[in-house]
Amino acid sequence: MTIARLVPVAARVLAGNHLRCRSAKFSSSFQDPVFETASSTLRFGPGSTSEVGQDIAHLQAGRVLLFVDPNVQRLQSYQTLMESIDLHCPSAEVEVYSRIRVEPSDTSFQDAIEFAQKSAYDVVVALGGGSTIDTAKAANLYATYPTGDFYDYVNSPVGNGHPVPGPVIPLIAIPTTAGTGSECTGVCIFDDTPTRSKTGIASRALRPALGVVDPENMKTICSSVAKYPGLDVLCHALESYTAIPHQLRPGGRPSSPILRPAYQGSNPVSDIWSMHALQECVQYLPRLVADPEGDEEARSRMCLASSSAGTGFGNAGVHLCHGMSYSVASQVKNNFWTDGYSQDIREEDDVHGLVAHGLSVSINAPAVFRFTGKPQESDDNLLRQHIIERHALCARILAEARVERQGGGVPSDSAMKSEPGEALAAELLELMSELDVPLGIGKLGYTQDDVDSLARGTLPQERVTLLSPRQPVELEDLQKLFSNAMEY
Amino acid sequence: MTIARLVPVAARVLAGNHLRCRSAKFSSSFQDPVFETASSTLRFGPGSTSEVGQDIAHLQAGRVLLFVDPNVQRLQSYQTLMESIDLHCPSAEVEVYSRIRVEPSDTSFQDAIEFAQKSAYDVVVALGGGSTIDTAKAANLYATYPTGDFYDYVNSPVGNGHPVPGPVIPLIAIPTTAGTGSECTGVCIFDDTPTRSKTGIASRALRPALGVVDPENMKTICSSVAKYPGLDVLCHALESYTAIPHQLRPGGRPSSPILRPAYQGSNPVSDIWSMHALQECVQYLPRLVADPEGDEEARSRMCLASSSAGTGFGNAGVHLCHGMSYSVASQVKNNFWTDGYSQDIREEDDVHGLVAHGLSVSINAPAVFRFTGKPQESDDNLLRQHIIERHALCARILAEARVERQGGGVPSDSAMKSEPGEALAAELLELMSELDVPLGIGKLGYTQDDVDSLARGTLPQERVTLLSPRQPVELEDLQKLFSNAMEY
Repeated sequence: MTIARLVPVAARVLAGNHLRCRSAKFSSSFQDPVFETASSTLRFGPGSTSEVGQDIAHLQAGRVLLFVDPNVQRLQSYQTLMESIDLHCPSAEVEVYSRIRVEPSDTSFQDAIEFAQKSAYDVVVALGGGSTIDTAKAANLYATYPTGDFYDYVNSPVGNGHPVPGPVIPLIAIPTTAGTGSECTGVCIFDDTPTRSKTGIASRALRPALGVVDPENMKTICSSVAKYPGLDVLCHALESYTAIPHQLRPGGRPSSPILRPAYQGSNPVSDIWSMHALQECVQYLPRLVADPEGDEEARSRMCLASSSAGTGFGNAGVHLCHGMSYSVASQVKNNFWTDGYSQDIREEDDVHGLVAHGLSVSINAPAVFRFTGKPQESDDNLLRQHIIERHALCARILAEARVERQGGGVPSDSAMKSEPGEALAAELLELMSELDVPLGIGKLGYTQDDVDSLARGTLPQERVTLLSPRQPVELEDLQKLFSNAMEY
Repeated sequence: MTIARLVPVAARVLAGNHLRCRSAKFSSSFQDPVFETASSTLRFGPGSTSEVGQDIAHLQAGRVLLFVDPNVQRLQSYQTLMESIDLHCPSAEVEVYSRIRVEPSDTSFQDAIEFAQKSAYDVVVALGGGSTIDTAKAANLYATYPTGDFYDYVNSPVGNGHPVPGPVIPLIAIPTTAGTGSECTGVCIFDDTPTRSKTGIASRALRPALGVVDPENMKTICSSVAKYPGLDVLCHALESYTAIPHQLRPGGRPSSPILRPAYQGSNPVSDIWSMHALQECVQYLPRLVADPEGDEEARSRMCLASSSAGTGFGNAGVHLCHGMSYSVASQVKNNFWTDGYSQDIREEDDVHGLVAHGLSVSINAPAVFRFTGKPQESDDNLLRQHIIERHALCARILAEARVERQGGGVPSDSAMKSEPGEALAAELLELMSELDVPLGIGKLGYTQDDVDSLARGTLPQERVTLLSPRQPVELEDLQKLFSNAMEY
């Protein structure tokens, strides 16, 4: 078969369900026929960090609030940024905040908020990974629109879910990992200590005004900091592409377009981004992990894949891998610490364990896609087709890349003939073994005794669990999912 | 070969050159390693027009300036919009401007500007095709930032090329044709009567704040108004995908990121959009032309393809098909009038002929891609590969769709083995014949005697001709191009 023969087939799958929905006159379950997508302005390329001083000058911003990861502060990226600010805005006052916690918490967010509320500033700059950019988003929001209660803007049911009142002060986000895609989304995530859950704040208004993606800033990452954020990218792509179609999102059409969530379900525009990210990820993540400092092409590709996936899931949502990850990370067992991650916070903040975000997400993925890839008796044809076609296409894309890595040939048809969810899970496990990722939450110290607590910790993550293509997802489904994720 | 086998191949072509550039250490010709992309917020779906009143209410806009195509004013779309405004903003004052000229001119723009400058308003809404949305952009710009000389913001060399000073009043663009993609771009185009050329104003600042793409608004289009805007979409996709890579754009890296043009050359993000638009277009444009009122799926697909292509070329640029179109349209022969287009302006405005924009663009395409698809001796490997791979992939995508329309099978390898530019031209001619498009500018009344004047009329279009992957494009190249476009 020739190249283009395939392209239209993929394209048909990509946008197909949206329109099939329409022509099928989907009646009662055809709930929200409209979707809305937005993305940050993105500047991409080696050396782009050195242009940021000019952006600040163009904004006529005299006061800059800079959030920087303390580890990055010792690196060339920070120096490049500061030199650019010095050169182009010699009279700008720059306040630097660097108490960034890996996997931020309610208290670390509040520390940053307090800092931001004390200073007056015209622009916010964030240089670091997702934790840094998320901290900057939260601090900027509460400094622009102060509120007496920290939980006011936090997603319900943990928080009060108040909408962001209006535009925030412009944020320029400069990622130093290829992972969260936070430079493209309006989401910031934190560990909520009182409820031992992960939650966050999500609003289109929080999207950075400009994302500056400079592959030079990822030069010094180690293999683990390539691997886990990269697996996060992979799950962003897989979850957003397999998420429930926006028309079928529980809750249906909102009473006003302002209330249509950014996490609205999969749609033809998010599909374009998620597919791009997935195709890049399966090719370049293994290469980047193998040679994080030397393989420039892989680094550059993963940087863009991370932003693509961010734009995809930022306009569609993620579902169960992320929903379940919040329990896995926040109920971490004593003394489990992800290899390669800084242990600075261990003593300083009395943190007893750390599951890197990308690990806590991807470790659930095989169990999740086995579950979501199986249509149910009660599903109508549209949903059934969505589930089967999309899980199958994802499995195929992983399989083809694996075969190419292993030296050519064509993947055995047998894998592709089995149930699509099983096929996808099998391919994920192949990739995870190759990348030396713990295969199952048992490897993080969890036992069957933890299953109930992990499942209950996931229940409040409705914002994402409602986007699973298999609905509803009840407590006992989650218990089974964690049980199945124990050991692969 | 299986589906995914192909997807990665296409993906490799998609983003490949960007990275090859880097690893090849492209020295002197490796000029601008950075690109920047931005896109309008897009709301898509049947019935989305009825939400616009809520957007206006949310903006707390008491005064609305509404630009509407006079033909659309008689249709349901206009009624839906007005009812939504009445319902959600009962106290809003709405000023309506409907003197929209098909293919706007300097005088029609100035009439609209004068109108906008007289009224005070908080939001602009445009309901119509590209002409309406472009008119609204221009009027809004000069009303927000008045200037003594109309040519101040107009692209040089026709105008003074002054940058837009800052943000403009928010524009909500609601297209009623699937063509220009104007709802996603910062470009507005007009016929300049004094110089008999087409030119425009281009700035990221002119991008609509929100594009509302409602397939219901395209329900009443006739076959011609499906065909020519659709061919414009096709050329947006083909030209932006084959445009010179951003790294090699003549002029190179600007002294400030603010000066990096939106028409910056092809790049991995614009490629994603252009490829999506191309794949949709080759499948759904022939169906839409065959049944513009009945084929809902084709209509919906072409609506989204139009926005995708707009986002693609709005972040990359177009090249010779568009560059040459401006002469073809502005030097129109007496009494040539595109079938199916309203002749209202013929008497009112003493307009003597009309070449629909999509016709004036696509009619050059076969000659253009024969020219651009042929690498030159002096091209380095990067550019050679870019030219060959991309023209070949586009030809293949057209060929596969044609074969599918003609009832299955695989296109003969022979077509694919010839020079890629020739293959693409041949496929375009097949599609144009099928759609009953005049095959050559001779059919519009031009003769060899006009070639020099058409070529000279194209010379001022540097902003786009500089994006041809074959450089330089001299007067005699243009003469040959028009000569070759006379009859196919």
